[in-house]
Order: sequence, then C-alpha cells, then structure tokens
Amino acid sequence: MFFHRQELQFKAVPDAPDAVFARKLQEILGGQYGEITVAMQYGFQAWNAHIPGKYRDLLYGIGAEEMGHVEMLAIMIAQLLEKAPVGITSDAVQDDPVVAAVVGGMDVQHAIVAGAGARPVDSNGNPWSGGYVTASGNMLADFTSNANIEMQGRLAAARLFHMTNDKGVRDLLAFLIARDTMHQNQWMAAAAELRAEGLEGFPVPSNFPKNKEHEEVAYQYLNFSDGAAAKEGSWASGPTPDGMGEFSYHDGPTSTVPMPPPTHPDSRFYGTTEVPNVIEKTAGLVQDKLNKE
Amino acid sequence: MFFHRQELQFKAVPDAPDAVFARKLQEILGGQYGEITVAMQYGFQAWNAHIPGKYRDLLYGIGAEEMGHVEMLAIMIAQLLEKAPVGITSDAVQDDPVVAAVVGGMDVQHAIVAGAGARPVDSNGNPWSGGYVTASGNMLADFTSNANIEMQGRLAAARLFHMTNDKGVRDLLAFLIARDTMHQNQWMAAAAELRAEGLEGFPVPSNFPKNKEHEEVAYQYLNFSDGAAAKEGSWASGPTPDGMGEFSYHDGPTSTVPMPPPTHPDSRFYGTTEVPNVIEKTAGLVQDKLNKE
Amino acid sequence: MFFHRQELQFKAVPDAPDAVFARKLQEILGGQYGEITVAMQYGFQAWNAHIPGKYRDLLYGIGAEEMGHVEMLAIMIAQLLEKAPVGITSDAVQDDPVVAAVVGGMDVQHAIVAGAGARPVDSNGNPWSGGYVTASGNMLADFTSNANIEMQGRLAAARLFHMTNDKGVRDLLAFLIARDTMHQNQWMAAAAELRAEGLEGFPVPSNFPKNKEHEEVAYQYLNFSDGAAAKEGSWASGPTPDGMGEFSYHDGPTSTVPMPPPTHPDSRFYGTTEVPNVIEKTAGLVQDKLNKE
Amino acid sequence: MFFHRQELQFKAVPDAPDAVFARKLQEILGGQYGEITVAMQYGFQAWNAHIPGKYRDLLYGIGAEEMGHVEMLAIMIAQLLEKAPVGITSDAVQDDPVVAAVVGGMDVQHAIVAGAGARPVDSNGNPWSGGYVTASGNMLADFTSNANIEMQGRLAAARLFHMTNDKGVRDLLAFLIARDTMHQNQWMAAAAELRAEGLEGFPVPSNFPKNKEHEEVAYQYLNFSDGAAAKEGSWASGPTPDGMGEFSYHDGPTSTVPMPPPTHPDSRFYGTTEVPNVIEKTAGLVQDKLNKE
Amino acid sequence: MFFHRQELQFKAVPDAPDAVFARKLQEILGGQYGEITVAMQYGFQAWNAHIPGKYRDLLYGIGAEEMGHVEMLAIMIAQLLEKAPVGITSDAVQDDPVVAAVVGGMDVQHAIVAGAGARPVDSNGNPWSGGYVTASGNMLADFTSNANIEMQGRLAAARLFHMTNDKGVRDLLAFLIARDTMHQNQWMAAAAELRAEGLEGFPVPSNFPKNKEHEEVAYQYLNFSDGAAAKEGSWASGPTPDGMGEFSYHDGPTSTVPMPPPTHPDSRFYGTTEVPNVIEKTAGLVQDKLNKE
Amino acid sequence: MFFHRQELQFKAVPDAPDAVFARKLQEILGGQYGEITVAMQYGFQAWNAHIPGKYRDLLYGIGAEEMGHVEMLAIMIAQLLEKAPVGITSDAVQDDPVVAAVVGGMDVQHAIVAGAGARPVDSNGNPWSGGYVTASGNMLADFTSNANIEMQGRLAAARLFHMTNDKGVRDLLAFLIARDTMHQNQWMAAAAELRAEGLEGFPVPSNFPKNKEHEEVAYQYLNFSDGAAAKEGSWASGPTPDGMGEFSYHDGPTSTVPMPPPTHPDSRFYGTTEVPNVIEKTAGLVQDKLNKE
Repeated sequence: MFFHRQELQFKAVPDAPDAVFARKLQEILGGQYGEITVAMQYGFQAWNAHIPGKYRDLLYGIGAEEMGHVEMLAIMIAQLLEKAPVGITSDAVQDDPVVAAVVGGMDVQHAIVAGAGARPVDSNGNPWSGGYVTASGNMLADFTSNANIEMQGRLAAARLFHMTNDKGVRDLLAFLIARDTMHQNQWMAAAAELRAEGLEGFPVPSNFPKNKEHEEVAYQYLNFSDGAAAKEGSWASGPTPDGMGEFSYHDGPTSTVPMPPPTHPDSRFYGTTEVPNVIEKTAGLVQDKLNKE
Repeated sequence: MFFHRQELQFKAVPDAPDAVFARKLQEILGGQYGEITVAMQYGFQAWNAHIPGKYRDLLYGIGAEEMGHVEMLAIMIAQLLEKAPVGITSDAVQDDPVVAAVVGGMDVQHAIVAGAGARPVDSNGNPWSGGYVTASGNMLADFTSNANIEMQGRLAAARLFHMTNDKGVRDLLAFLIARDTMHQNQWMAAAAELRAEGLEGFPVPSNFPKNKEHEEVAYQYLNFSDGAAAKEGSWASGPTPDGMGEFSYHDGPTSTVPMPPPTHPDSRFYGTTEVPNVIEKTAGLVQDKLNKE
Repeated sequence: MFFHRQELQFKAVPDAPDAVFARKLQEILGGQYGEITVAMQYGFQAWNAHIPGKYRDLLYGIGAEEMGHVEMLAIMIAQLLEKAPVGITSDAVQDDPVVAAVVGGMDVQHAIVAGAGARPVDSNGNPWSGGYVTASGNMLADFTSNANIEMQGRLAAARLFHMTNDKGVRDLLAFLIARDTMHQNQWMAAAAELRAEGLEGFPVPSNFPKNKEHEEVAYQYLNFSDGAAAKEGSWASGPTPDGMGEFSYHDGPTSTVPMPPPTHPDSRFYGTTEVPNVIEKTAGLVQDKLNKE
Repeated sequence: MFFHRQELQFKAVPDAPDAVFARKLQEILGGQYGEITVAMQYGFQAWNAHIPGKYRDLLYGIGAEEMGHVEMLAIMIAQLLEKAPVGITSDAVQDDPVVAAVVGGMDVQHAIVAGAGARPVDSNGNPWSGGYVTASGNMLADFTSNANIEMQGRLAAARLFHMTNDKGVRDLLAFLIARDTMHQNQWMAAAAELRAEGLEGFPVPSNFPKNKEHEEVAYQYLNFSDGAAAKEGSWASGPTPDGMGEFSYHDGPTSTVPMPPPTHPDSRFYGTTEVPNVIEKTAGLVQDKLNKE
Repeated sequence: MFFHRQELQFKAVPDAPDAVFARKLQEILGGQYGEITVAMQYGFQAWNAHIPGKYRDLLYGIGAEEMGHVEMLAIMIAQLLEKAPVGITSDAVQDDPVVAAVVGGMDVQHAIVAGAGARPVDSNGNPWSGGYVTASGNMLADFTSNANIEMQGRLAAARLFHMTNDKGVRDLLAFLIARDTMHQNQWMAAAAELRAEGLEGFPVPSNFPKNKEHEEVAYQYLNFSDGAAAKEGSWASGPTPDGMGEFSYHDGPTSTVPMPPPTHPDSRFYGTTEVPNVIEKTAGLVQDKLNKE
Repeated sequence: MFFHRQELQFKAVPDAPDAVFARKLQEILGGQYGEITVAMQYGFQAWNAHIPGKYRDLLYGIGAEEMGHVEMLAIMIAQLLEKAPVGITSDAVQDDPVVAAVVGGMDVQHAIVAGAGARPVDSNGNPWSGGYVTASGNMLADFTSNANIEMQGRLAAARLFHMTNDKGVRDLLAFLIARDTMHQNQWMAAAAELRAEGLEGFPVPSNFPKNKEHEEVAYQYLNFSDGAAAKEGSWASGPTPDGMGEFSYHDGPTSTVPMPPPTHPDSRFYGTTEVPNVIEKTAGLVQDKLNKE
C-alpha cells in the first residue's frame, strides 16, 4: 500500500518561467531513464522478488521515494510553464523572434493538451512506456540494470544542470543528482552483497550448468572488425572477471559452417520458390492442390 | 563499412519443426535484450565514441559479430516454421487439440505476414524499437548498460534452453549462451579498465563538481517503506563503493518542504481555477479579455 | 511524497496456479483502463491542478490507493504463475494437449522475460503507455475521463470475474469491482459538484465565448448516414443538456462549400504537379533554379 | 458503405501561410482526441453495437461527419504549409531569426516526408494509434468516453483558437468548436436516454450482481493522502449518484492484510531465491536436475 | 465529405463462430497492410495532391470504398466472435483441450476489452498506427507504395483463405481478393500513365538535377557479400530501367575513405574522452570551467 | 556473418556544425524509409528467402552496403552536433534569437540523451521500429516494397539536399542519392526478371486460383466519390496490366447487400442489448444465470 503526504522532499520552485526548459525536464520525468522508470522498475522488482528481507525492503524503500521525485518534477514543470510565453496570441509570436524561438522550442502539447501542465512523456513527446521496466526475477541482472539507470539518469540530470542558469531549477537538479549518487552507489553495494552471499554470481545466471554451454568459445575475443587495438585490452588476455576462465584473442570467428539451404514452406503461403515451384507448376500439382480445396 | 559472408558462425538447424518455439525464439532476436539490440547498440556507441583505439575497436569488433547472431536466429526461426502446422486448413486444427494448441500458441503473423519467416519483433509480436538502444557518449554508463543487456540476454537464452528438447535448437542456444558469457565478462573488464585508466569513475559522470550537488543527501539511505531489514545491508552503513562517502540510514526523508501553491496559467487555457477565476468571472474580466480578441 | 507499507488492502492469493488467467489479469494492471492508468492519471491531474482544496485532495487521496491496487494485481499475477506449467520442458507440452493449450494461451514473456513475474503490459503484451493519461487542467473534462476509465475498468473486471472459477481470484476481483463502484460514483459526484459551484459547466470549456463559435450549427443534428431512427432520440429535438439551446434534426449537412484548389508547394519538394510543373519544365525554369544552387 | 463528395462542410482556407500553426493543428487531426479518433471510435462502436435503431444510427450518422472533419483539417494544413518557409535554403534560415524560429517550431516531417502535406500524427509527430479507440460494447461506458473525447477535443480547439490571429483558421476552428458543442450535448443526451430506457445504469455495468462485489467497501471514501479537505465533498457523505448507497469517509484503508510470502518459481528460471536455492545448491539438487536434461 | 449507407458491398456472414480466425482476420482490418491503411493512405494522398482531376478523383474514388471494407471486416469479426467460446467459465476451458486451445489462440482483448467486438489492431493486438500511411506528394512514389500495399494485402488475404473452411468467410475473402486484384492493376496502370504523361519518371524524383548526384556510382552494382550469383542478374549489366544508364558490376565498394576522427563535444556533456580530457583534468581546466558556473 | 572495416564508402564530413540539420538528417538514418530500414529489410528478405542464387545474393549484397550507410549518416550527425550550440548555458540562448532558434529546432535528446551523438530515431524523435520491415516471402511483392522504399528515401534525400548549403553534407547526400538511383533501378530490374522467369507475376500472388476469387469484380473500377475525371484514366477501360482482364467503369458499387443483424454475445460481457436483454431481465434469467455462478 502507498500513502501520500502533501509535502515535497525538496524545494521545487523556479526563479523564472521557461517553457523550453520545461520540455527538457520531461526527459528525467518521463524519459527512458526518468523517475517514472525507476519508481515502476523498483516496484515490479519488489513484487516479483522471490526472497523476503533486506533486498526486497531496499526495493520498496527506494521505489516510493522515486514516486515522490516524479511529483517534484511534475510540479516544477507546471511552474516553469505557468507564466511563460506558450503560443497564446498575446505572446506576440510573430513580432518577437525570441518569443517565436521559445514557442518553437517548447513541447506544444504542454499548451494544447495539458493547459500548461506536466505530462508522462520524454523531452521529444514520446509517451512513457512500460517497456522501459526491467524486472527479470534475477537480482544481480536487475541490480545491474538499476545501476545503469541511475548512471544514465544522473548523466542526463548533470547535462540539464548546464542548460539553465535558473537558481531554483539548479537547486532541484543538485538535489536529484545527489540522490542519484546515493542510488548508484547503493545498487553497486547491493550487487556486491548478492555475490558475497553466494545468492548469485557472474556470469548471470550463475548456476546455468557450465557443461551445457559451448565452453570453448566462452572466453574468446573474436574480432569482427579490422581495428587491432582491441587486442590491447584486459578483455583479450588474462583472467576473466567471473574468475572461471582465461581470455584469448582471435582475429575473426574461430568456427564457421555453411548456411543451411533455404526453406520451402507450404505452397499455399505463395512464397517465391525456384525449382520445386516451377516443377509443381509444370505438373499442375500446386494448382491441383489449390483447386481441390 | 560492413561486409557479409554467406556462412554462419555455428550450425543453426533444428531437429524438428516447432512453430511455438519459433515464436519464443523471437525474444532473443527482436526483443528488448535480443541480438538486434546489441548489434545496433554497439554500433551507435562506436559511432558516437569520442576516443579512437581499443574501446572503439572493441565496440566495432563485437557489433559486427552480433549482426551475425541476428542472422543465425532468423535462419533458425524460418526452419522451425518450415514444416510446422501453422494454421493451413489441412493442419486439421479443428479436429486435433494438439495442432490447435500449436496454432494457438504460435505468432500468427509468422504465417499471415511473413509466410513462415522470421520477423524483427519480440515473442509477443511487439516490433523492435530504436528506443532499446543506449549510447550516451559516457562509456562507463554505456558499458554498464552493455553488461546488463548481456546478463538479461543470457538469462532469457538460459530459460529458453529449458523450454525445448530439440537437440539442434539447444546446440545453437548453447553457443549463444557461451558468447554471452564472453561478452558479459568483457564489458565488466572494459568497465574496470576505464576506471583503472582514470577515464571515468563512479559515480557516473565522475567529474560533475561534487560541490554542485547537495552533498548532505548524497550518501543517505532514506527508507520510504516500513521494511526494517534494509538497514542490515552494506548500503546502509560503511564506506560507499565510489570511495568518496559513508552510508547512513534514515527512516524516511531527512528533509521536507511544503508544496508550492497551485499554478494559474493564462485563462485562455480554460483550466479550472477557483478564486481568481470566480472573481474574474464576476467582474467579467475574462469574458472581456476573450471578447476583445 | 509517497510512503509504502508492506501490507495489502485485501487478500490477493489464488487457490490454484493459472498462467492463462495471469495473462488476462494484466489487462486491468497494465492495460489502457488498468490500475497503472488511474494511479498516474490522478497523480498528474493533482500535480497540474490550479486550485488547492477538496478537488486536489480527492485526486491525491485516491491516486495513492490505486498504486496499491497495481501492487495487489502484480502480486496476484506472480502467484498465478508460480506453479503453473509455463513451457519448461518437464511440463510435457508435446504430450499433453491441455498443457500445450495453457502454454499457448499464456503471455510467453511472463516466462522468458520476467521469470514468472508480473509486467507493466496489457493482456496482449503491449507495454503500458503514458499516452493513456489524460490531465488537461480542466477538471470537468478530466473528471469525465476519470468516470469513463472507472466504467471501462469495472466492465473489464466484471468480464474477468466470469472467466475464472478460482475463489481467491474472484475474491480480489470482487473487492476491486466494489472500489470501482465507489470511484465511478465519486467522479460523477465531483463532476456534479464542479457544476453546482459554478467552477465549470457544459459545454466544456464553458467560458469559451459563445459568440466566437458558429452558433447556428451548435445544436444541429446532421445525419450523414441513411438510418432514420436517430431522429427519434432526445438528441434530435428538445432542449439541450447544457441548457443553452434547442436540438434540431437535419438530413445531411446544412452547409457545403467547394473544395479549395490543390496546393502547389515549392518545386524542390518534387511533388507531382500538373500544369505549372509542365510549364516550368518546358521553360526550363525549375531546372534553372535547381542548377543555380 | 461510405461515399465521398468533393465538397467541404465549411470553408477551410487560411489567410496566410503558417507552418508552426500547421503543426499545432495536427493535434486535433491526428492526436488522441482528434478527428481521426472520433471518426474511428464511432465507427467501431456502430459495428460492435448489439442493438439496431436510434443509438446505432446516431453512431453512424456522426461517424461519417467526423471523417469529413479529418478532411477539412488535412486540407487546411496543406494550405498553411503551401507558401510557408519550411527550411528550403532560399528561406534564408541562417540569416533571419524569425525564419529560423519558424523552421525550428514546425514539424520537420511536414517538409521532409510529406512535401508540405498533412499527416496522420499529433502535434509532436506521434502517429495516430488504434489504441485511442474505445468500443466496449457497453453503450453507457462508451457514450461517456465519447462525451469525454468531445470535451477534450473542444478544449484543445478552444486553446488553438487563441494561438492564431488568422481569420480563415479561426473561422474553421469556430465551426469545429460549434460541432463539438453539439456532439458533447448529444452524447450526454444519449447517455441519459440509455438510463431512462433502462438499457443500462450506474454503476456500469449495472447488472453485475451486487452480491458478487464486496459491498462493504463499495461506497467508502478511503483517504490515502493527508489532505483533509476531500472530506467536505459530496463524495464523502450523502447518497451516491447511482442511487444505491450512502457515501462514508475514512482516513486510510478500512481493511489490510499481510503480504503473501514471495513466490518461488521453477529454479530453471534462474531467479534469485534465498533459502531454498541455497539448500538446493548445497545438496546439488538443482545442478542434478539441470544435468539430467 | 463522407456519407454512410447502411448496406454492405458484399455478404459478410460466417457459417460458424471461430474466435481464433476472428483474431487472424484482424490482420487485414487493422494490420500494416490492412483496410484501415488503404482507406487512410488514399485519403491523405488525395488531401495532399497538387493536381486536380483524374489522379485525385481516383484516390477519392477508391479511398471511400476501402472504408466500407473496414466495415465489412469489423462486422464479420463481431459475428465470428458472437457465439464462440471466448473464456467465459461455462466454456469449460479446463476440461476441454479444444476449448482451451481456442481461448489460448484468440485475441483475449476481443473478449475483455471489446466484449466480443472488432478492434483497430492487427492479428497480434498491435494498434493500427498512423505511421503505416505514406503520402509524400510525389505520385509515382506513392502509387508504387499503393501497389505494394495491395500486393501485400492480397497475399495476406490469400493465405487467410487457406486457413479456414468456413464458406461464408471464404466468400468474403474471395470478394476482397478480387478487389485487391483490381486495385493492384489500377495502381500499376496509374503509375504507367503518370510516366506516359511526363508528370514523373524514374528514378523518383525524376527532376532532381542529374549533375547534382554522384553519377559515377549511380549505376554500379557493388557486391558487399560473397555470393557471386548476383552478377548473373539483369541488374549487373545492360541498360537500366530508367533508360538513362548502363549497369556495371563490382565486387565490393569502388570508393573508400578513412573514417573521420572521433568527435569531442563540450566537456559538460560528460562524454568519455581520452587525451584532451586527461589533459584538461590535469590542468584543472574542466574543473575550473565547471566551477565558474 | 558480417565483418566490419573501419573505413567509409564516401567522405562524411560537414563544413560547419548545424544541430538543426543533424536532426533533419535523422529522417534518412532512422526514419520509416531510412537506411536502418533498408539494411534490416534486405537482411530479413534474404534470411526468409526460399531460393538460393542471384536473388538472395542480391539481397545480401546490398543489405551489407546499407549498414555502411547507417554508419556514414551516424558519423555525419555526430560531427554536425560536435561544435553546434545545443543548449549549454554558455550558448547564450536567452540573449541571441538565432541561438535560441537553433536550440528550439534541434532534437533535444541529441544533447540530453546522446551527449551530441546520433540516435536510431527519425527527425521527430520517434524510435526506429521493426514494423517498418517488410519480408513476406513473396519476392515480387517484396521487391515492389523495396522499390518504394528507395523512391521515398531518394525523395527525402533530395528534399534534404535543398535544405542545406553545407558543401560537405551535400556531398554525402549526392553520394547517397546516386546509390538510391542504383537501388531503385535494380529492384525494378529484379522485379521484371522475376516475371520474365515465370517465378511470379501479377496480380501478386499470381498462382492463387482465379476461380477462387470473385472474378466479376476483379477488373471493375467502382467510383465511391463524385469526381468524374477518374473515368478518363487507363484504369477505367482497356486491358489490365496483368494481361488477364479488361477494365470497366461503374459509378458506385455493382453489388450491395443489407447489413447483417447486430450480434448478441453472452450476457456476461455486459454489452448493451435491447429486446433480449430487457426480456431476460424481466424474466430474471440473466440474474439467475449470474447468481448461480
């Protein structure tokens, strides 16, 4: 169960209206690596968790915080739009190139659809998608996804920080960036703890029987491009991070087989086939089969 | 530039037709964590790379291999469909419950749209999306995304391995799982190397000025749920993985502010407002403004 | 801010596993009219609200409850999947037509992607979309949308009720249907209250100046089909629900104008144009213009 | 069957070109609440109708009109684009900030893809989606959806009216707004008539057996936020709009249950599990099961 | 303007219910190459047409017919679903594998969302998308797209014909296939006429100045794979279909250039850069720049 | 298998930065008719091909070239963005209307998400979709699709050519336009060759039994609009392009049937029904049935 309190975790008030920045801020609200994604992702991972205790508590504990971040950003966006020129005729779009540029650079649906309100979309107006959520049931895989989201999200927030001089907006971003610092660290700590406790290891999934995979290619670097420098990396020789192998370097594939022959599905799919079809046609076989129906 | 050779890296021939499994296999071909994703993701990361040399060569070197994996899966799927009952009337759907179940469980577009061929979609028929690709220009963030994809992909392949007894299909999966082992290890090695060389560190992005973020909340665990067990984790006390802080645990937020007042955008957005609108209406102000236009 | 409590509002435990029903239940979790939609829609309406007080409190008060319904359904789905045959080879799909039908009718991504967990998608596997959310800033329009969602959602839940005999599942559905009863009623009451208080009226938006719209067609029923029965309805004669007009009935349009002539954009768009282009070509004008660049 | 006549219902000619407004106008052509939506929605409701006569005739009668509105808007958009600067080099984008702003604010696909023509997309370029259409077979639910669409659509058109001074465009909008007035009224009248005739009532669906839902929570307002003002509304006490109950107000849930224990799906999904998995691992059970395959 | 008549162009009544086939039929109703696509595509091409007369009349003349085909298919689907087992408990899913298979193979949203009605989606439940529509303003390009759609659509309909024995369904398909025969022929005739009249030619767009393209590679077959047989085709030697060149065959590219060096965007994007970044870091330049803000 | 070489087929270096054009260029990289589409489409057609030899070799031979075009465009876009004003505060957006216009007209995700890099999206930021790919197994249908894509793609590239004066960008476009000339010609040649060899003919699919379609309407032009000019076309009289019929012209449909009666699905779908439902209700039948469950 979720409970709402009509307070914010941090001040979310801009110094001045800015419709173009309102649009940009949508990226960390409703974008692939935005706050809706983390809120929902931590939720689904918790609901699909197979163990009670600290890991699931962690997912619940942060998921609810992230819903509050969705709220802070939505409220900030509504305020950035409140007094901004947003295309209403009295904004004098046609006369003033700066106003025209603002209107051109804003999310026009902010005005037409939401009446100067926030929306669950990214900075290009693509609606947030449930496809952004990863919750596989394997916690090491999922915590790695979480770490990635927090990195990509912190990166976007840091870029946005340099795209505005508004003190109020920067303040909120500085708060969110700090929370991303925390969450990025925490998923790394949690991933390490999973491994230390033997609940899961590398390569994920760690208990797929080694003898079932083609072990001879499990640690080979196969270079399918002509850049030789990749040979210098720690991924081309030496022990592997999973502690179970030794990297080797190969220029190109170590195995090849001829392609299997083309398929010939039922002729009632009307695909283009060469010999068989020509023969069948000659003999009238296909036509017969078709006529019989 | 890319060059194609009409050979496969590994044998991709099923022992028997299986339209339902053909559908399932689409997940690792055209799903979020499938081969099209890795092929395109490594490509875009290489094209957006800001440094020449081993990291970019690595991206190119593997990206091209993954396009070959797309090909192997597509060819396998076409063969699984080739002789399978796929709804053609002579399959006797109505009489045979097993055939009916096969037809019910297959991707019907495999038959209707592709004429028994593979498609760039996932196992539910959702088309592959460019939105699956992450290429931020920050290599530590992106290699973490790559590691995640290889984990999620290997997990899906391992699950699929247990969903078929077909020797030929399992053989191909065993090969792909081994390559995922390699690629998972390699991205972990590459991420470690980036850090060792000082090109990037945690938290990503590592050179965002620390004094610009709200440092007081940068290492606080704030528990927004009522599960106490999260306090036991290594993310609630002790040094942080980025080596720059010390975790602390707090039950709930350490800061709150009142919500800002609701916004009042231009009345020509016709939003619902209380006092101002009522006053304006009484005074006829809005109506006047609107009539003047 | 949102806070989470590790309890549910109602028991969510099925009597028996049922992977096919788990898929169907996704409709009211992640479908267009599912619980994610109401949770997010009420949230965005609150964040975009222009008045404090009872209406915004109402939106907040229910929005958080709906997030808890998302949770109940996700947890129910995970349990329905827990012991169900989901395509693992030992389920003996090939031998048992009932198992084959189950596997054929389930959401295969439940198994391959989520490892027997819930996902933010509808019953056909389409990811939940931010495009489902309506929050226009006009409360009468939005409360009508809310009433519609609660109707469509209760309808889907009622249909699902008749698609299972599982006592535990029916129990949860009976609870959710009752809450939909409440929420449907409440949005109707809230819409009526908005009108009674004069905050908004019909037609929405009610303060768009009447003399700015083409009033002569504002209450005409124009019949563009050949069914005469529509003339019998209360929408074809008598006073209009907004209290401002009188319906009239007309067979077909009451006004027509000729189509404007086709457009002729710049020739460098290479559209197909008849006379001008032919003339320009003859005269070499286009070619000249193009060559000059 | 549909028949086309090469006339328009109303004049659709702008006074001057305006590429930015052409983009905005796409919202009511191809947006969620645009004319394609109503045309298709009324069509599908008619085709799925379970009763002949006035309601179905009404759906057909208006659906065809809406297809004509799609046409009027498409033709208007093509004309707004016809002579506008749209990025062709001679528009002198680089020298003139106003031209640059226009080109920046337009839908660039209008130029690149459609050659200065209209497209079935919204004002952010999102393609129209069949997911916008609601046709449930329950007419009271669907007419409420229709009323909502006409409200949201009229709201968007009214906002657009204030975003241009072009006499020709305003004229068309004034016509469409008037038709929205009519259609909004008509769906309210039709919904009322359905109830008056006893074909359907509130709560929708009205004949779901009352004793099958959990009646004790069917009229309870449960406040999951800390705003007390919602208690003042007509939804917190007094008779309910469906005439079957009495509202009551409760601060928070009136029922709670503990969460069910986490699920433990088949180990071949490689989910992260604590005790069972650890035990199985110790005993080699999982490994045995996996090796046996 | 469009007018509707409550008749169908052809009988659309199945002999027996069939929920699985109802789903398959959705492909030619709401799929990429279904009837909604042609209806909308011909409409948008007409509205964007730059010439009056026979070509535009043709687009209008057929577009309206296709809307009637949408209707016929929707009505057929509703009837196929009317009495079919669709998951209602009395269908005895659990006991009867054939019923289970039917329910598993149907579109479950047909039941849950549409109450046994048709929907604007394809056979996998993907909503119809405005992105399916092509209307470029260049008629030769667009008529080629139209011919392609009619081919793909006739192909799908022919495949569906073999997937049912229902006399009524086959009858409707036989009618639609015949109309596809007509429309396929007609777009080929129209494309030929455009060329004969000199309105447009190959390559499209035909009046892009030849000297502006890199003519030396305009007729070279460059073989980027290792299959030698492509050399045997009429595309590898001899005159080109556009009548303006001569094909030549080359094994691989005829030109190559080195890759440009990697980009180095502003350091405030926090991308990973090698030397410059390292230098900047050493010198504290970046940090200085960042701190100054 | 695919191999990568770190060279480009042609120089891809702009003379000057241009963030707005970078966005436009995305159309032919990641748009519906962009290079990703052709690369993937030719690949899937090859993998689904049913005949070995020249046609499949052709598909492979060009598919790999197109992947190299994806690369050239991505690299060009990254360079166009490298030094452009993209919203970083020092770009002085607020003071300079030209900079403001640039930032307004660019793809903001280029900056926020990709750090000045290319993305697999179109010029409006819609992600590339697997739904763009056509691979039906019927080569004449598919080669027609290929010809269409090359036409639409060449058209977009030609339009883009006129939207920039940058010598370097125009040079690359001139190269790509020339390759489109080649590929457009080649698919026309290949389609002609398929027909000449009797592998497939018009109407596609050519071996669907003529007596199975409703031949009487197979060559009728049925005019559903009131434009008479369409009668003048070669599609209204004379022999048909497929060589098997004679066109005839008809004003309106040549056949009509009454609509079938509305459907009455199971009452547990709670659809709105008139007489039966009323009767059932009166008799208590429905309620009885519902109560019994």
